[in-house]
Amino acid sequence: MPLDQVRTLLAVVDEGTFDAAAAALHVTPSAVSQRIKALEQSTGRVLLLRTKPVRLTESGEVVVRLARQLAQLEHDARRELGLAHEGEPATLPIAVNADSLATWFLPALTRVPAELRVCFELRREDQDHTTTLLREGVVMAAVTSSPDPVQGCSVTALGRMRYVPAASPEFVARWLDGPLRQAIGRVPVVVFDRRDDLQDRFARRLTRGRDAGRLRHHVPSSEGFLDAVLAGMGWGLVPSAQAEPRLREGGLVLLDPRRAVDVPLYWQQWKLHSPALAATAEAVAAVAGEALEPF
Amino acid sequence: MPLDQVRTLLAVVDEGTFDAAAAALHVTPSAVSQRIKALEQSTGRVLLLRTKPVRLTESGEVVVRLARQLAQLEHDARRELGLAHEGEPATLPIAVNADSLATWFLPALTRVPAELRVCFELRREDQDHTTTLLREGVVMAAVTSSPDPVQGCSVTALGRMRYVPAASPEFVARWLDGPLRQAIGRVPVVVFDRRDDLQDRFARRLTRGRDAGRLRHHVPSSEGFLDAVLAGMGWGLVPSAQAEPRLREGGLVLLDPRRAVDVPLYWQQWKLHSPALAATAEAVAAVAGEALEPF
Repeated sequence: MPLDQVRTLLAVVDEGTFDAAAAALHVTPSAVSQRIKALEQSTGRVLLLRTKPVRLTESGEVVVRLARQLAQLEHDARRELGLAHEGEPATLPIAVNADSLATWFLPALTRVPAELRVCFELRREDQDHTTTLLREGVVMAAVTSSPDPVQGCSVTALGRMRYVPAASPEFVARWLDGPLRQAIGRVPVVVFDRRDDLQDRFARRLTRGRDAGRLRHHVPSSEGFLDAVLAGMGWGLVPSAQAEPRLREGGLVLLDPRRAVDVPLYWQQWKLHSPALAATAEAVAAVAGEALEPF
Repeated sequence: MPLDQVRTLLAVVDEGTFDAAAAALHVTPSAVSQRIKALEQSTGRVLLLRTKPVRLTESGEVVVRLARQLAQLEHDARRELGLAHEGEPATLPIAVNADSLATWFLPALTRVPAELRVCFELRREDQDHTTTLLREGVVMAAVTSSPDPVQGCSVTALGRMRYVPAASPEFVARWLDGPLRQAIGRVPVVVFDRRDDLQDRFARRLTRGRDAGRLRHHVPSSEGFLDAVLAGMGWGLVPSAQAEPRLREGGLVLLDPRRAVDVPLYWQQWKLHSPALAATAEAVAAVAGEALEPF
């Protein structure tokens, strides 16, 4: 496979359109188009759907994954040979769920030695959907809820992220005159987005089968979610790391001291011998060991 | 147009697939499919692309917008007639950019009287892309950077969100031995995601045309972005509301006291006489007036 064509495919996928890839590579859009066509002819497969933004076919995903691994290996080799210069940082695309990003994940990244000159390209994604990004070759590693390795990836257990049911004292005074279990169907609840079923799972466990109430606010940001619960807009399952200081100060009330919801988190990464990736995995495992509940 | 079919279309769009819509409506997937087909036959238009998740055609967008307006009007009428009961909150889908969501937007929503029983369904979206969601009928209102009204919408100027170039003292000691202008091409920078060009715009203004450096971290969360800058991973443009307390405490250093970047924000909403929407618009305008820079 001609490497300039493989690199061009990668640029089209990263930039989203042929025109943007052409601008990034300093060539004409028709040169980009010709290289992709040539690559499709030599592999005998359609690699890209010409949508806006472009989308990869299954064959395209295989080639893009190869392209990213090649780029990483080339970068590492140049560094070992002393050929890498200032303008050539290694880019590490990683998918991470919003709550990890808001709590323990960034402190982990700051432990990666700056000498490695690694650039983190984080993608915020639901922990149930990060494996898709791994499979598509969009990211090289992911914090995911799935222990089943994506083909070509290794898996490490990080720990369990604990969520506790909490609300503001004003919310409790206004809406709850008994245990949450009796009122859960009619009181307002805060959920992250339409894919977030933590609150419903908790409600079903509490009531033997009924969902949380229909009066629900969707707040798709970890800190926004916490702010909404603190402001009394609804009850919600709050990561215990964020909840604890507020529970101590009285800004939040624990609604059920005996029940928490634990979400297991795993680190999946491509099997690739890369110093940048290895250093990142090590830092992530170390900080997760301190911040998460053990398995 | 038969309203049960219009409602079914809305459910398919909201849930993403025919199967999920069927589950939400408590009917069979084939009933959902038949209603959509019947609606397409009576309107003489293809309304949905059968992708996963489904996508609306332009004609489909018109019908979905109608469906949402109908639902809102019906809800308001039932409320005025005293017919609405506990289980029927009004849902207000609103698109909002991440930085507004992390700073001034939630305090605005808490000012909407609880008696209105409105559920906020927030969508976090880049301020340049929120108008697309309005046009597609996905949201009824949006915080957007565009002053040009989407067809059928009204526009109110909210104010300008101010961003200041900042970094941690450790970053400054390690990377900057002179003004940012001279070093900007080679020092690490934090950007939100690939669509975020604030840092590059600032760099081009400072250097007459050159972008920020290639050593860049993508951190797609407002608080994560701030954490990354505080941790010294790079410099970045931080909303002044988030920057100010850290500048006072010494956690951040202002890199150029004379230059800030202002992003104008507008409120766009459907022209619809709805008490819930009107109360929200009023609260948003009031809090924006306190939190943002005036035009």
